[in-house]
Amino acid sequence: MVQKSTPATPGPAKPAPDSSRRSEKSRRAIYEAALALIGEVGYQKTTIEGIAARAGVGKQTIYRWWSSKGDVLMEAFLDLSEQAAEAAAPGQAYAIPDTGDLAADLKAVLRLTVDQLLDPVFAVPSRGLAAEGLVNEELGRRYVAKLLEPSLQLYVQRLRAAQEAGQVRADIDPRIALELFVSPLAQRWLQFTGPISYEYTDTLVDYALGGIAAPGSK
Amino acid sequence: MVQKSTPATPGPAKPAPDSSRRSEKSRRAIYEAALALIGEVGYQKTTIEGIAARAGVGKQTIYRWWSSKGDVLMEAFLDLSEQAAEAAAPGQAYAIPDTGDLAADLKAVLRLTVDQLLDPVFAVPSRGLAAEGLVNEELGRRYVAKLLEPSLQLYVQRLRAAQEAGQVRADIDPRIALELFVSPLAQRWLQFTGPISYEYTDTLVDYALGGIAAPGSK
Repeated sequence: MVQKSTPATPGPAKPAPDSSRRSEKSRRAIYEAALALIGEVGYQKTTIEGIAARAGVGKQTIYRWWSSKGDVLMEAFLDLSEQAAEAAAPGQAYAIPDTGDLAADLKAVLRLTVDQLLDPVFAVPSRGLAAEGLVNEELGRRYVAKLLEPSLQLYVQRLRAAQEAGQVRADIDPRIALELFVSPLAQRWLQFTGPISYEYTDTLVDYALGGIAAPGSK
Repeated sequence: MVQKSTPATPGPAKPAPDSSRRSEKSRRAIYEAALALIGEVGYQKTTIEGIAARAGVGKQTIYRWWSSKGDVLMEAFLDLSEQAAEAAAPGQAYAIPDTGDLAADLKAVLRLTVDQLLDPVFAVPSRGLAAEGLVNEELGRRYVAKLLEPSLQLYVQRLRAAQEAGQVRADIDPRIALELFVSPLAQRWLQFTGPISYEYTDTLVDYALGGIAAPGSK
């Protein structure tokens, strides 16, 4: 979750790279307004009108660039993820580090995720979007496809590298394996099922790598 | 999640065991109406008035037994969990079976949970409650304390028995260990991050018990 997401594909109606500084400023104000509103009043009560008013732009400015509230929000979240990743690891590529020590690399990335989940700037709007995604399956699936799955694929890549290095069993499916440490953190944060901390995510990585069974037992 | 929850503590205003058959019928109609409404319109739009109308009882009947919408819903969910557990394992105690084969016992119970999560009668209202619990922290914490945590404690008990039998490492915290197989299933179901099946939950148990690291590697 803390990792850089794949950059948003620019839609046909988005401002081109040569658009004026004024457009860029409006775009940023719109993203900030959209994230603030979904955090404060939830997805359903967030409207294009409300975003425009809070961003200090006309409604038509938003409609010129995006076709729906869902589109604005999705890009605002992509932008937020990219900013968070850039803040955590300036200038780095979109990947989990590979120092050769799998446990250390996974622990480091999960600690960054803990930081992010404890930061209201990221957490409050993310919770608002996630809540709507639970009961609005179409939005939920878009959120997963555009935001969540690309970050999970970074774990897949890191686990595949570990398989090639002989550190993870060859018969393991990396897409399932990553859930052993990512999903517990996600559930504790989303559903308030328990506290989150570095010690907790370190423990998850140790359990997932080494297993919980006693040596010699099945 | 499939396991029997601890029974609701009867509140001072609940019908006593000797209340009339008519009261029992009303109580059941109220539970069913409450669960149907939260599934259809969500938590926020579910009202005492709406529940009363759908159940065919007067508003005062509900207020006589419960002080708020949240209280009615919580008891309706407790009742639903108890019914599901009774259907899955008639007459059994509130525990995960202990056949001596930890992997088999965990797989069996997770397969029942898969059945439950794929059954709209359970899944639709549960999703409505979970969605509200994400953004309404007070409700979310009550849901966890009354419904989720008691069922997770059954895994804690089973894992402790396995530790005593020497099948799980003594230094493992069972409350964290259970999340390696419970949370991935919960996240796939809640957030539409992937399909759920018996094969999937069997795999989670195998990975959690045996670990994903190659033998001999750290």
